[in-house]
Amino acid sequence: MENPLRRKAQQIVEYCIEQVQPKAAVQRALEQFVPMFSPEGKTVIIAVGKAAWSMAQAAVEQLQTGGRCKNSLSGVVITKYNHSKGELPGLRIFEAGHPVPDQAGFAATAQALCAVENLTERDQVLFLLSGGGSALFEQPLIPAEELQDITAQLLACGADIVEINTVRKRLSGVKGGRFALHCVPARVYSVVLSDIVGDPLDSIASGPAYPDATTCETAGAVVKKYQLKISQKAKECLAEETPKSLDNVITVITGSVRQLCAAAADACIKLGYRPILLTDCLTCQAREAGSFLASCARSYAGKGEKVALIAGGETVVKLTGKGLGGRNQELALAAAAGIAGLANTAVFSLGSDGTDGPTDAAGGYADGMTESRLTAKGWQIVQTLQDNDAYHALQAVDGLLMTGPTGTNVNDVAVALTE
Amino acid sequence: MENPLRRKAQQIVEYCIEQVQPKAAVQRALEQFVPMFSPEGKTVIIAVGKAAWSMAQAAVEQLQTGGRCKNSLSGVVITKYNHSKGELPGLRIFEAGHPVPDQAGFAATAQALCAVENLTERDQVLFLLSGGGSALFEQPLIPAEELQDITAQLLACGADIVEINTVRKRLSGVKGGRFALHCVPARVYSVVLSDIVGDPLDSIASGPAYPDATTCETAGAVVKKYQLKISQKAKECLAEETPKSLDNVITVITGSVRQLCAAAADACIKLGYRPILLTDCLTCQAREAGSFLASCARSYAGKGEKVALIAGGETVVKLTGKGLGGRNQELALAAAAGIAGLANTAVFSLGSDGTDGPTDAAGGYADGMTESRLTAKGWQIVQTLQDNDAYHALQAVDGLLMTGPTGTNVNDVAVALTE
Repeated sequence: MENPLRRKAQQIVEYCIEQVQPKAAVQRALEQFVPMFSPEGKTVIIAVGKAAWSMAQAAVEQLQTGGRCKNSLSGVVITKYNHSKGELPGLRIFEAGHPVPDQAGFAATAQALCAVENLTERDQVLFLLSGGGSALFEQPLIPAEELQDITAQLLACGADIVEINTVRKRLSGVKGGRFALHCVPARVYSVVLSDIVGDPLDSIASGPAYPDATTCETAGAVVKKYQLKISQKAKECLAEETPKSLDNVITVITGSVRQLCAAAADACIKLGYRPILLTDCLTCQAREAGSFLASCARSYAGKGEKVALIAGGETVVKLTGKGLGGRNQELALAAAAGIAGLANTAVFSLGSDGTDGPTDAAGGYADGMTESRLTAKGWQIVQTLQDNDAYHALQAVDGLLMTGPTGTNVNDVAVALTE
Repeated sequence: MENPLRRKAQQIVEYCIEQVQPKAAVQRALEQFVPMFSPEGKTVIIAVGKAAWSMAQAAVEQLQTGGRCKNSLSGVVITKYNHSKGELPGLRIFEAGHPVPDQAGFAATAQALCAVENLTERDQVLFLLSGGGSALFEQPLIPAEELQDITAQLLACGADIVEINTVRKRLSGVKGGRFALHCVPARVYSVVLSDIVGDPLDSIASGPAYPDATTCETAGAVVKKYQLKISQKAKECLAEETPKSLDNVITVITGSVRQLCAAAADACIKLGYRPILLTDCLTCQAREAGSFLASCARSYAGKGEKVALIAGGETVVKLTGKGLGGRNQELALAAAAGIAGLANTAVFSLGSDGTDGPTDAAGGYADGMTESRLTAKGWQIVQTLQDNDAYHALQAVDGLLMTGPTGTNVNDVAVALTE
């Protein structure tokens, strides 16, 4: 059954993913960094995050081309399960748990710390950082079980990513600038794909190589706000301050949600829609963002103009059920109720990493027919959102956007198409 | 302390209120209706809702001008406490409880039903309906205490207005078209100021003079969804169907949130802002709408253009605390967090009836300084929203929009100004 709108959504999704691949971004950063490298020193690549493999691949390719790197490369890549795309020369590649950290991540992090031990002032660490690093790059200062428990508590109570990281970096031997301390006296060249709206460098992957702007006081406030249950040892860690300056680190941001929104706008123009960029720093609840976008689409619908409303950022999900889903899927499912019955109208939302929440979908798609199709199959939108089970509902009506892991992570973009 | 942005907000608010006054709208409707009136018959005015007094005044003025109405006028006006502005010739004026119905409303409704008893085919009822009518116009079929309790349960659990009315009209002798049945054989001329997004006539004030599109089945689903506690008698009422056609009624809609949004856009243009109408049918959670609008403002801020983002509709509040506030105040307070620190940026939200929730404020105002001013006075935004206490927080920082009761009710409009 042909659905032209569904096909357009897929085209926009594919274009967006293509435009935010890390390769070109990493190459641009290296053009800037390589001239600063010490020619006699060793170069150690530490790549961490959902985009780690692609970033490392781009770096290896760049450094090996034209003999820019005299000594052989070494290093460690730590990415999410199923996000490695194969061997990379000189690098050891690890996959680990995300969003909840696991033993594989802790072991891989230990390997990364080994790789930067005993470096000299002439050596350099190329630190390639992308979203997901908070979970993947971890040396817990408290028992792993409690760290996992605290992370789960924070995710379940709807804490935002900044709050989560404020707590987590103090329970960690690598976060909040502590990784860069491990690298001293070597210089750290940090290349960052931003997955936090507004690009706060001390928060992206909890800032392993960036001075920490958060304080023990704010961490304590988060614990209090969400009434987290934590041990005495954890309390002691939360009271220990993180580095406030690091003089061995240079950082560049190579990509963010702004590029993603711009790519979506370009794709919409190509399809004849007038793009209206609402925001590139959305942080509200996923389902409410879906409702808001649906209201926008409903107001523009039937006015005789093809319009695309675009909102980028990272919404949050409050867990109230035990279903399967992700924030982009919840956004689309909630929007389905708001655009029900509208012709030529769709709302879809994409996680640029290709894995929305703990699912194999990149996001969700809904159009004016979605609600009635769901009803016909026995799905109720309100109840499904309550159960956090958007994945299975959307799956039943061809509403899952599938891309596979994309190798990049610059947040999400939601698009409402109407005419 | 002069705050130019605060003054602009107040100007926009005043302009909006002025533009959506019911007088002109009622006059237009009567131009259409009066030629259909039976000259020998009696004309009974029944005006119900927050705008009832202004609508009745406009109608009386119009009907008396030029002797259009040969017989003397009679009738009943039922409005919210403090919403009457004095006597009107021939009409009995009652004030009653809103949003929770009370005995004063039940007694006034009984008077209205008396006024339409024993009419003939030559008589006409001019039914002037505005928002708030669901609570103000009521003949409960169950004990008043239980009706109040069910209404309170529905409001507290975050049910939307459509869901609330679906239940309430079946517990009533006047809602869901039943009032129009009382008027038979007289003809009913119904003039409606819409306060529900999308203008569903069977839902505005629970449609006393409009065939009811909702069914016993949907009412039962609402009870189940929110796990309402109801008596056996109430269950029986919910099983009794409402009229599905009414051949003695003619209806016109004379005003809605669309006019309100257009007025806001006009006012913004006058102040040099480019208006972007996001939607006129917003229905999501108030605080999330505030967050979304703040994100939009943040993305447009500092781009060198004066932009006004406008969203009309009726958001919902989920009660989690015991503070004082309303949906417009919650929206503004939530937005304060999102625009914190931004220069020349404000978000404000206005209930066109001038009374947001159970407060004397019309809505709330926040700008880039609001969060720090709140913090300085000991207010935390997240906690205040949790307590539903936006009124007192905004009061502390000159963030309450005060208009007094406006005599009209066409939903809410929220505006984000930035440059």
